[in-house]
Amino acid sequence: MDEVKLFGYWPSPFTQRITWALKLKGVNYEYIEEDLPFNKSKLLLQYNPIHKKTPVFVHGGKPIAESVVILEYIDEVWPENPLLPEDPYEKSVVRFWAKFIDEKTWPMFSFFRKEGEEQEKAIHDCHEILRTIEENAGLGENKKFFGGDKIGLADLVLGYLFHFYLPMEDVAGVKVFKSDMFPRLHAWMKNFGEVPVIKDNVPHHDRVVELLKMRRQMPPPNP
Amino acid sequence: MDEVKLFGYWPSPFTQRITWALKLKGVNYEYIEEDLPFNKSKLLLQYNPIHKKTPVFVHGGKPIAESVVILEYIDEVWPENPLLPEDPYEKSVVRFWAKFIDEKTWPMFSFFRKEGEEQEKAIHDCHEILRTIEENAGLGENKKFFGGDKIGLADLVLGYLFHFYLPMEDVAGVKVFKSDMFPRLHAWMKNFGEVPVIKDNVPHHDRVVELLKMRRQMPPPNP
Repeated sequence: MDEVKLFGYWPSPFTQRITWALKLKGVNYEYIEEDLPFNKSKLLLQYNPIHKKTPVFVHGGKPIAESVVILEYIDEVWPENPLLPEDPYEKSVVRFWAKFIDEKTWPMFSFFRKEGEEQEKAIHDCHEILRTIEENAGLGENKKFFGGDKIGLADLVLGYLFHFYLPMEDVAGVKVFKSDMFPRLHAWMKNFGEVPVIKDNVPHHDRVVELLKMRRQMPPPNP
Repeated sequence: MDEVKLFGYWPSPFTQRITWALKLKGVNYEYIEEDLPFNKSKLLLQYNPIHKKTPVFVHGGKPIAESVVILEYIDEVWPENPLLPEDPYEKSVVRFWAKFIDEKTWPMFSFFRKEGEEQEKAIHDCHEILRTIEENAGLGENKKFFGGDKIGLADLVLGYLFHFYLPMEDVAGVKVFKSDMFPRLHAWMKNFGEVPVIKDNVPHHDRVVELLKMRRQMPPPNP
């Protein structure tokens, strides 16, 4: 009963976090692609009755929802290539940033569906959030990643900057995440994208662009 | 340098979570009351430059912000009376509910400042959230608390239902958290309030009512 399954959706930043963690730790698992947003499987709804969303991680028949909760579980059960520093204080710093990124960066994408003045306001808000991370997370000084030299929890949570945010900018036709405004975050993204497990497991840019173009013409999904 | 300090605000549900954890674990600490919302200390702003909010926990000179991150830290550094179950799966269930409660229950309070139809809508949303917890968290079946027999992380996060929510209802003059609608949550609240450390460390109902009456006549604080 130690079967490992991941119910995901290929372009989803949240699914991607789990894929990376499992690959980093060398865990074998079965991947089940969900047909979102309109055709969720019965199993998905049964395993995640509260949020009805991917990703859902199932280990030995027991389901876990919420990507950060899943990451903590994976890190405890498969301790190789740890996602959290050992020191409790450093761990709390990584958890602080993982939470900040998880809560603040998704709404940042509102620029994608807006135009004109509304879009400018959304871009301004987006810059505020990126600047907070840029200036306060200690990246670039003595840290390659949020937790130090090794890729970890907060990096996986922010990883979609790399494979989802850039395509979003392309589709919206605006440059928000500018390298001269956010040099440390850009250096972080370069370090992140060079890690083989990351580079080799990322949705293809053009495929994401194609999906986002379609999505931009549809009404936003239900919350 | 193992000094333990808590920067808090006496009626704050978020401060209260930390107070309870420290008392449960028998940790000696210095409590520094902040004069909120208009007169934050320099130290608070220095220790929590991102959110500029209480609680801030300082251990050996190192600050931690975000109440759930602080609770995880405290639980690791002072393992007696653990706040999380040992089993990784059970732990993930408690973390799931702690996250759900932390994210969903605070906005639930919007009924407090509303009137008429708007208030009815807010109360409806509030019931949805309470019903989700009532029906899905496994309370009451074989569990006295979210993690089983002992009080833990998710209980401390929801604890303000007991000392903050009830006074809010009194001030707004509405009954939202009805015992016949939410029998399991009411049984949970009774169990929770009977734990000596909780009962003995809770802001006084009348003092909270007095503060909330004043607050209801003021504009809402800045986010």
